[in-house]
Order: sequence, then structure tokens, then C-alpha cells
Amino acid sequence: MRIQLINPNTTRQFTERLHVNAQAVAAAGTEIIATQPRLGTPSIESHSDEAWATLGVMAQVQAGEASGIDAYVIACFGDTGVAAAREVARGPVVGMTEAALMSACLVAATFSIITLPPRTLIHSRRVLHDLGMQHRCAGLRAIDVLVDDCREEDNQALYEALLSEARSALHEDRCEALVLGCAGLAEMVDPLQQALDVPVIEGVNAAIKMAEGLVRLGLTTSKRSSYALPPRDLGQQWPELFA
Amino acid sequence: MRIQLINPNTTRQFTERLHVNAQAVAAAGTEIIATQPRLGTPSIESHSDEAWATLGVMAQVQAGEASGIDAYVIACFGDTGVAAAREVARGPVVGMTEAALMSACLVAATFSIITLPPRTLIHSRRVLHDLGMQHRCAGLRAIDVLVDDCREEDNQALYEALLSEARSALHEDRCEALVLGCAGLAEMVDPLQQALDVPVIEGVNAAIKMAEGLVRLGLTTSKRSSYALPPRDLGQQWPELFA
Amino acid sequence: MRIQLINPNTTRQFTERLHVNAQAVAAAGTEIIATQPRLGTPSIESHSDEAWATLGVMAQVQAGEASGIDAYVIACFGDTGVAAAREVARGPVVGMTEAALMSACLVAATFSIITLPPRTLIHSRRVLHDLGMQHRCAGLRAIDVLVDDCREEDNQALYEALLSEARSALHEDRCEALVLGCAGLAEMVDPLQQALDVPVIEGVNAAIKMAEGLVRLGLTTSKRSSYALPPRDLGQQWPELFA
Amino acid sequence: MRIQLINPNTTRQFTERLHVNAQAVAAAGTEIIATQPRLGTPSIESHSDEAWATLGVMAQVQAGEASGIDAYVIACFGDTGVAAAREVARGPVVGMTEAALMSACLVAATFSIITLPPRTLIHSRRVLHDLGMQHRCAGLRAIDVLVDDCREEDNQALYEALLSEARSALHEDRCEALVLGCAGLAEMVDPLQQALDVPVIEGVNAAIKMAEGLVRLGLTTSKRSSYALPPRDLGQQWPELFA
Amino acid sequence: MRIQLINPNTTRQFTERLHVNAQAVAAAGTEIIATQPRLGTPSIESHSDEAWATLGVMAQVQAGEASGIDAYVIACFGDTGVAAAREVARGPVVGMTEAALMSACLVAATFSIITLPPRTLIHSRRVLHDLGMQHRCAGLRAIDVLVDDCREEDNQALYEALLSEARSALHEDRCEALVLGCAGLAEMVDPLQQALDVPVIEGVNAAIKMAEGLVRLGLTTSKRSSYALPPRDLGQQWPELFA
Amino acid sequence: MRIQLINPNTTRQFTERLHVNAQAVAAAGTEIIATQPRLGTPSIESHSDEAWATLGVMAQVQAGEASGIDAYVIACFGDTGVAAAREVARGPVVGMTEAALMSACLVAATFSIITLPPRTLIHSRRVLHDLGMQHRCAGLRAIDVLVDDCREEDNQALYEALLSEARSALHEDRCEALVLGCAGLAEMVDPLQQALDVPVIEGVNAAIKMAEGLVRLGLTTSKRSSYALPPRDLGQQWPELFA
Repeated sequence: MRIQLINPNTTRQFTERLHVNAQAVAAAGTEIIATQPRLGTPSIESHSDEAWATLGVMAQVQAGEASGIDAYVIACFGDTGVAAAREVARGPVVGMTEAALMSACLVAATFSIITLPPRTLIHSRRVLHDLGMQHRCAGLRAIDVLVDDCREEDNQALYEALLSEARSALHEDRCEALVLGCAGLAEMVDPLQQALDVPVIEGVNAAIKMAEGLVRLGLTTSKRSSYALPPRDLGQQWPELFA
Repeated sequence: MRIQLINPNTTRQFTERLHVNAQAVAAAGTEIIATQPRLGTPSIESHSDEAWATLGVMAQVQAGEASGIDAYVIACFGDTGVAAAREVARGPVVGMTEAALMSACLVAATFSIITLPPRTLIHSRRVLHDLGMQHRCAGLRAIDVLVDDCREEDNQALYEALLSEARSALHEDRCEALVLGCAGLAEMVDPLQQALDVPVIEGVNAAIKMAEGLVRLGLTTSKRSSYALPPRDLGQQWPELFA
Repeated sequence: MRIQLINPNTTRQFTERLHVNAQAVAAAGTEIIATQPRLGTPSIESHSDEAWATLGVMAQVQAGEASGIDAYVIACFGDTGVAAAREVARGPVVGMTEAALMSACLVAATFSIITLPPRTLIHSRRVLHDLGMQHRCAGLRAIDVLVDDCREEDNQALYEALLSEARSALHEDRCEALVLGCAGLAEMVDPLQQALDVPVIEGVNAAIKMAEGLVRLGLTTSKRSSYALPPRDLGQQWPELFA
Repeated sequence: MRIQLINPNTTRQFTERLHVNAQAVAAAGTEIIATQPRLGTPSIESHSDEAWATLGVMAQVQAGEASGIDAYVIACFGDTGVAAAREVARGPVVGMTEAALMSACLVAATFSIITLPPRTLIHSRRVLHDLGMQHRCAGLRAIDVLVDDCREEDNQALYEALLSEARSALHEDRCEALVLGCAGLAEMVDPLQQALDVPVIEGVNAAIKMAEGLVRLGLTTSKRSSYALPPRDLGQQWPELFA
Repeated sequence: MRIQLINPNTTRQFTERLHVNAQAVAAAGTEIIATQPRLGTPSIESHSDEAWATLGVMAQVQAGEASGIDAYVIACFGDTGVAAAREVARGPVVGMTEAALMSACLVAATFSIITLPPRTLIHSRRVLHDLGMQHRCAGLRAIDVLVDDCREEDNQALYEALLSEARSALHEDRCEALVLGCAGLAEMVDPLQQALDVPVIEGVNAAIKMAEGLVRLGLTTSKRSSYALPPRDLGQQWPELFA
Repeated sequence: MRIQLINPNTTRQFTERLHVNAQAVAAAGTEIIATQPRLGTPSIESHSDEAWATLGVMAQVQAGEASGIDAYVIACFGDTGVAAAREVARGPVVGMTEAALMSACLVAATFSIITLPPRTLIHSRRVLHDLGMQHRCAGLRAIDVLVDDCREEDNQALYEALLSEARSALHEDRCEALVLGCAGLAEMVDPLQQALDVPVIEGVNAAIKMAEGLVRLGLTTSKRSSYALPPRDLGQQWPELFA
């Protein structure tokens, strides 16, 4: 099975870190192909960034289709471009946010989300609302950190900020699990889980496992209406992206 | 006051029809500037189309900001790119869908939406859900017509299809007003209203009036968090669009 | 165009202040006729007050219909009597609360409401719930001030109370706009907006602009069912009010 | 225990029929005092009717307070004036609609409502929405009959209409109980229940039993905020009603 | 009329205290038969406890059916086993939680719940969600006390804990009534009500009154689908319980 | 990895069929241990059946904990006993219904459920409501078939009933995927998918894949509050079941 892990931003070294972490949780026999758009935004922290990244995600999925990919994982909290990707793809497309929230609901009655930076709270809210899981979300919190800070391999300050906000969430929200609201935090899961003694959910890896499962079950994206193939191919208008 | 009416698709003659209709309802002293993206999609009938059109809307708003526009109206049912546009704009940005739904709620207890083509039902549902107005929507219906058909100035077949679906809506949904779910249908409002004797709401013109009102009240888009200015300018990556 | 601005309470000098503010935002060609019931309550701070004021609003609309009014604005937070007014009126009827909430949703992702006095929180909640916009409302707050205090032209204490509560709302609710929950606060908008740097929405003037827009679009209140003309005229039972 | 059964319309002979039925289900030791407003509307079939009737209900409760009433039942589907009545009353106030819906939830997983005439559907929807029980309501239906028709003691046509609509509800809505959406239908309960073999709920009598229960438990209307005593007594403005 | 009050846990002396309190509020002519399962859990503080107690409730209702009981009251906050009991019973089955929440809605605009111990918050949330009354619940609180502590007749510490939490609820939640989230607290109602001057609702007694009312109205549990008689009798598998 | 697949009813040959199907989709290295309660109900078609089966599920999980099971899958539509199982288990517990609904949301915008027999519709509704996914469910349908009929290996009549109802769902509900609402239907997935050309989701196998994923991610059930270990061990009360 071949799963394409799409980092919707253009930062290649971030893609590589996601790749390593994803391959580590993948099943034997699953090949993770990690890619990022050729152009776009180095980081996704706004609706504008999302707009650029969505086209990049589409271009990546289009390339994936040409090479026989079985499923896709979109590695940005907010699930950038997932709906458009579902149109282009034949196989399943799993967003890291929806995968994280669903996983959280399977191991806990309620969860809190800790995302970053604060201006992206609206993106988390959108996914929560779209799934209807607001009543399971005990708190939606943000730490005042840029996405770049999630990319350092050894970022003690980020860890401390997450740990502190998580402790507030457990105490004030009475939540029973934590969802990390940014890609690239897989290394934080174990230390946080040990420090806090509650499930800590990282969405990229959760999405990898859900994508594997859907493929194994023979499920593909419904082409009946909302996610039918795009009515036209517009890639030639921006050949630098849709190479 | 200068309001930029953005047709998110690239069909210039459609922009012109919207322009004429909008100027006809604008207040004395309101100048309507109607534009469309230089590149993108000729029609918006899918998430993929929306992705292309969103970047086009952003480029148009960026140009509008440079020329001192007071407010923007986005003329696509589904409110393509409105969130990203709100980041780029200082003044208000009004989507035709939200304007239509709000107007409907002011003149009727419930309404039905008639959109097209059927695969875009999901886009109407998204705006309804985002505003929370599902309980006011008695029915969400689609006719099996392409957006292109809304662009003919004299399209009797489209009119008949709308009229027939509207009659079903009034009878089966017990709705009390109708929302036309596509731009470019302003000429249909009067004949439908006369035939059906209920309010028929067209969103582009509704949005023009709401935008005028917000400007007159001195309101601008909140820059506090969700719609703060974009964190970076990425336009140089696609200069053909962001000229 | 002639818009009747109905102050649902009986305090004439309050009507006059609303009139001046409304005429200042009205379009050229819009005549604002401001009236209040001949009998009723000097202030609306309870369900009982609402009951008296609703009949007064109906009487005023009935008079307006006789004199060819195009649209009505109801100037009480809680939208007193709007449903009954819609039955009596042919043209649109816009409540200041619904107009404020809709306007807020057009310029901000979330808003907080600051109303007064605390016992009227239930009236704000009712309108929020009726529109379905609870998820857009970051906080519903009240200051412990009587409606009378909103009527002083130079009320520094009220301003300070609003400013202080607004600062709490921005900080604690993470709201991105503020809705003033009482009529008669138009003069507060500019100073608050300057002090806080977020949109501050006053509903009476917002409703004037929405009413103008609906009339300009040729929309009238749906008479199909919920707001059909009243089944009987009962005005002769209380001739002092329905003169 | 003395419970005042308020018929919010002015039709005395209707009050008398309600009285007989209510006394028949009341506990030993409960005295039912049945009254109606001195002025107002002969029937409640619109928001305008509700406005008149609400003042009448307030006047009746005020009189009841003076004579030591323990609790009030409001006998109109739509719960006309219940909020205002709760301000005036010390003891509990129970609307027939809320009592019917709650009773239905206690004996069935879902219910359908059959109300009349069709224009009052919005009033039922308001109570459903206010309680949050929409998901328990399998269908909200109306028969095209005027309230007057519910007042005939031997009305075979009305019975047939209810029976026919009820059968549709059971079949099409898969509902498991029926709520009769109008006062004055107590005589219909037994024959419908025998014909249909599902619970049929009549709200006036249900409200009598709930009011008795609340009094017996020593519960009174909370005066803490929303239903605090009215801030002023305005009865002298319409002495013919508030005699 | 004979109402069986089922204490779902096995603590007989607790049953006796509930019995005394319930008989005190019952109507003349109502006989309260109080029982508890022969086997099961001494206290219900978890889903596991609920599982044991549900079978016990079913066994008790089965015995009640054999002896001609008219209605059942289930005396555990969380309404343990109510759905299964409704299948076995012909007459109405009322849970103390639903009765408490409904009663609260009849005397107050909003309420807070104080339950115990904290791990059972999820059970209260389930009933709230099932009825749809979340928007009426201003706060859901727990005190860190075991159910056993509710069984002492003279428990000053429990009273102090409730009083303190109630004061926080009134201040922080702005609630207008209080719901006691555990059976066996009937003696606390009067002192709390006097100390706090808001309605304090105890569910067991509320359920007794609702059950009496339903019986008096001739209502029985709908057997149409969800609560149809069980498809088989499995009691012989655990004869010690289903004796 | 060892996953215990619990058939909550007592029909051993049904367990075996589930086992075969589950092992077929399990990853290399996953051992499926399939069990059923020693006592209980042969089939789960009511709340009473659920009550018996819940204790059986608990007993099975308790046995699983003693033998070092990593995760559990509960194979009954309605997710019988999942909450109680989460208390007893250390590892994740996945219900087939939640797994099916989540999987459906990942491959389609909307889905319809086809369950059986009709009286169990309430159990599907409960899970939908608990997850908040009602707005994604285009239709909840039942066919009039007993669970036993799902157990025949070659059941053409059942297939025809499912196919016919599925066609109605696609046409009338405009759904984009189908969820099979009963365990034991894995063999139906391929033929239905080929006949209908939309995703058809079977929950038991979906749950197996989700459970595998959660274990691989190192996630276990949160023990913080709602699913903390049971406060007492009551198994000795029914030793025949908790052997």
C-alpha cells in the first residue's frame, strides 16, 4: 500500500520530519511517500495561507493519482484542502484534524485542543463544527507560538508551553484527553503523555493509521456528488505548480 | 462610496451582467466596480473550482485595497474565498450567500434554497451551517442545470426549471420565501415573485445593499484575530494572477 | 423611501434621539419617521414590559400602514413585537437585535454582546437562539445599569461601564467584535471603536440600513403563512392605543 | 390547592369546557378556577392574537395573585404569555405546550404534533426550539381547521381530520406518540388512543397535573433574574382589562 | 394508584429513606411501593455500576408488572435503566433526572446541576443531551463526595459542600435554579431553598409527581417501536436476580 | 498485537463468522481473538437485550484484561456496552457503530444508515447523537428483518432487501455512502458496492482497523474520569457469567 503524506506548506525539511514519524507508525507493507507543493506558503497560519496551500495540495494529489497512490493524508491542522483533494483523488483522503478528533472520541469522553498560533483557532473550530463534535470538546486553546517553532527538533520552550497549557486544560476544562493542534509534534506525544497521564493525540500519525484502514477495507472516496471528479482540469493555468 | 463586486470566475461577460444589475440597486453615490480574476475557472461548480477562484478573489481584493475600495461583494453562491478576502481587506466583505440567507430571515419565517448544479449542494450547506440557520431552511434543493445556463439573458428553460422547483418547495417544504442559489439570476426575481407571490431573494444585489450599509455605519472587518492581515505576501509566486 | 423607526417604549425624548442618529446614517432620499406608542411602558426591561410594548408596536405599524410606510425598524434590544409587526406590515420589519447580530457576523468571526440590565439577558438569548447564531457569540454579558441611563446624552459613567466590560470581553471571550445591547447608544460607537480597535455594532442604525436595502430590492414580508395578515382587527378594544 | 386555569382567549364557553375537563383529572383537594381575559381575542391563531392575549393573561395572573392562587396553567398551544405570567406570579406557571411535550418524552421516544390552523406552526416550533426537543419531534403537522372547530362538543369532522393526520404521522414520521396541538381537545384523547393504540397527549390536562406536582413539591417561580417581579405596574393604562 | 419507587442500588436502608420522603409528597390515594434489586451494586458511580443496576431495575419492573403496578420511578441521577424499564413496563416509567430537569425548566429560565462524585458528570451530560436541554443548563458541577455521603440522615458536611457549590453556581453561572444531582437529598431541599432563595429541585420526588400525573391522564408507555415489549424473556439465566 | 473481537450476543457460530471476516482485514501481526458472553441474549434487538449483553461484554473484557489484550472491538450496531467496557479496559475499545460512522465521514459528505429490525432505530440514533453526526446522516432507515437473518451465509433475500433500501436511500436521501446497520454483513459489502457504485461501510471490520491504529499509536483509554477503573468488582455476584 502506498500512502502519500502531503505537507501542504513548502518547507521540505518539515516534510522529512513528518515522513520519518509517519513511517515509524505505518504497518509493514505500507510505503509512505511524503511530498510538499513546489510553490505556496512556508507555513499555514491564516485563511490566505490556506488558499495557497489548497492549490498546492490539489497539485500534489493530481501527481499522486498519476503514480497510483492508494490514499492521502493532509498534514495541517485545519485540514487544508481536504475537500478539494477528495474530488481529485480516487482513494481516501484523511485530514490530520478529523483523524485526531475521531481518535480522541474513541479513547476519551471529552478532549481539549491546544493549537497555535491563536489566529488559527477559527480553523480548528471549523473542523469541529463540520464534524459536529463541539460537545465533545471541553476546551479549544491556543498558545502564542508560531508554526515555525514546531519544527525545531529539540524545542524545550515549545514543550514547556504545551505542558503548561495542557495542565490548565486538565484542571479548568476537566478534559480527559489532549489533541495537539499542529503538525510536527509527534515527538512531544510520549513526554506529554508521561507527564500528564492522559491520552495525547497527534493527528498526522492518527491519519496515517486511518488511511491505512480505509484502504484495507477497500473504501474509496464517494464520487456520487460532493466529491465527484472536478468538472475541468485547470492545471495548465499555473504550470509551475501543476508540473 | 466604491464597492468592488468580484465575480470569482473568469467569465467577463458574466461580470458585466452582474455589474448592470448591481448598479441598478446601488444607492446614489455608490460606484460599483466589477471585476473578475485574470486566471482561474470559467465557472464554480466544485471544491476544485473554489480553490482556484479563492486565489483569484484574493488577488482582486489586493488590487482593490491598492485603489481605495470601501467594501467588497463576492458573487458566487457558496461565498467562495470570503474568509481569505476578509484577511486582505480593510473594509467589509459580504458574500452573496450569507446576504441572501440573512435577507430571507428578515422577511420570512422559513425559506427554501434552489441551487445548481446538484453537486454544489454541499457548498450551500456549508454556509447554512456556518451561520447556524439550518432550522430556518425548510428545504435545500437543486436543479440539474449548469452554471453556464444562468448566464443566458433570455433563458426560458432555466426560468421554467426554477419555477417548477419553487412550486414544489412551497408545497412540500411549506417554505415562505425562496433563495436563488446562483449568481446571475437577478432578472428572474420579478417574474418569479409575481408568479409565486412570495419573496424571492437574489444574493448579489442583497450583498450590495448590505455592503453599502456596513460602510455607511463605519464598520470595517475586525483585524483582531481570525481576519487579521495575512502573515505574508505570497503574490509574487504567481505573478500572472497577482499582477 | 419612508422608514418608520418605532421606539417601543413611550419616552418621546428617547425617540427623538434615535431619530437624529438614524437620519444621520440614512441614505439621501430616505425619510425617517420616528414614533412611539401612545401608551405602554417608559422602558423595556422585562417580559411584562415587552407585552405592553408589543401592542404599542402593532398600533404604530397599523398607523404606518395607513400612511404608506415602506419599512419598519423596531428599536429595542430583544426585538420586541417584531413577529406581530410582520403580520400587520406589508413591507419589511427589521429588529435592531437581528440587524446587529447579522452585521457582526459580516465583519467578525465572533462577537460578544453587552446588554443591560442583567435581567434582560434572556431576551438577547432568545434572539440569538432564534437566529441560530449562538456559536458565533463568544460571550453574552450584562452591565448593571438601567435602560434610563442609556438616555442621558452625556453619560460618562455608562461609557466607562461599557468600556470596562468590553475590555473583559475581548480578553476573556476572545471575541472579535462587540454588539451594544440597548437602543440609544449610537454616540458610544465611535469612542468605543477608537479605544478598542474592533468593530462596535449599534443595532438601530444597522437596522435602518438593512431596511433600506430590503426596500430597494423590492422585498416585502412574506404573507404566505407565519406572517400572513392578522385574522381579525382587535384595535377597537383599546381605542386609546389604537387611535 | 387552588390552580387557576387561564384560557387566554375571551370565549367564555370554551373556558367552561376546559374547566370541566381539568377538574375531572385534578386531585382530590385541588380546586380549579377557570378564567379568561375580559377583553382580547376570541381565538389565538396569529402573533397578533398572541399579543392581545398576553396582556390578558397578565391581567388574569395579577388577579389570581390577589386571591392567593397557588399555580397557573395557560391553555393555549404556543404557551401564550407564559414568560410574562412567570414574572407576575409567585407560584409556578405551566404552559400546555411544554407540559404536553414533556409528557410525550416520558412515555415515548418520539412524538408528532398535530396543530391547527397551519399558520400557527411557527408557534409550536418556537416552543419546541425553546425546550430543545426538536430531535424528539418526528413530525410537526397541521390540519386546515380553525380553532373554532375545536370548540364544538360533538365535532365528528374534526375527529376524522385528526385521525387521518395521525395515521399519516404514524406511518410517515414513524412517531411513537401524538401531541394534540390545540386546547379543547380532551374529549378526543380516548377515542384517538383506542383507534391508534399509541399515547395521545392533551396539554391542558397534562399541565394541570404538572402544576399540581410543582406546588406539592413546594416549588415556586424563580425570582432571581429572568422572571423577577415586573419592574413597574402598568395596569392602570388599560383599566378595562386590568380591572 | 400504586407507584413503584425503584432504588437501583442494593442498599435497603437507602430505599427506606427514599420511601418516606416520596410518600410524604404523594397524593392521597397513591401508594408508594419502594424496592431495590436483590443483587447488584451498593451505589451507582460508574458505567459498570449502571450495567449491574440496569438488570436489577428490569427485574424489579418485571416483578412490579406481575403485581399490577401503575407506574415506576427510577431513583438514580443518570436515569439508570429507564429505557430498558420502559420496554418491560406497561405503565409510565419516570427517571429522577429527566423529572428534575423538566421541573427546573418549568420554574426557571436556566438551572445548574450539582452532582457527585465527579466521575459521574458524564451521566448527567447524557440525560441533558438526550432531552436537548443543554442550552437551559447554565452549569454542570460536581462535588467531590461519594454517594454514600448522601445517605447519612444528618450530614452537615455534605450540606455545606452543596451550599458552597450552589453559591458558586448562582454567582458564576448566573443560574436561576438548582438541580440536586443525586438521590437521597430530599431533606436538603428546604434548608438550601431558604439559604439561597431560588428553587432547589430534587428529582425523586419530582418524578413521583410526574408519574402520578401520567397515570391520572391515562397515559402508558408507547409500545409502538422503541419501547415495545422485550422480544424474549431472559430472566431464567440469572434466577437469583429475577426471582 | 492482540485484539479481542467481542460479539455481545451468545451465538457462537455468529462469532466465528465475524472472526473469519475480521482476520481477513487485520494487519499481519494482528491476532484476532473472537469471543462471546457465556450467558445473555442470542440477539440484540432491544434495550433489554442491550442490558443483558452489556454485562456480558464487561465479563469478556475483564477476561481479556487478564490475558493481556491490547484493544477491544464491540460487534453490535448500537455499540452495546462500550462505555462500561472502557472502564474495565486499559487499552482502546472501539464500537462498530462509531467506527462505521467515522469511516463514512472520511469517504463521503453524507451517508445513510440501513439498520434492522425497525425497533432498533433508536439505538442508531443514540450513537449518532452522541457523536454529533446527525447533520452528516442523510437518512436513517430500517428494513423489516430480524438479526437472525443476517447470520445466514447465503441469504439472497436479505441482500435484495438491503439493495432495494439502498437504492431508495441514494435516490430519496441523496446520500453519498451507505452504512450497514448490523454486524455480520461483511459479505454483503462487495456486491452492494459493485451494484451501487458508492462506498458501503461495514462497522466490525472498520472497528478492527481503528483499534489496530490506536494501539499502534500507543493510545489507551483515558482513565482520568468518565472511564476510570470501576469503583468495585461485582463479578462474584454472577459467577456463571464472570467465570
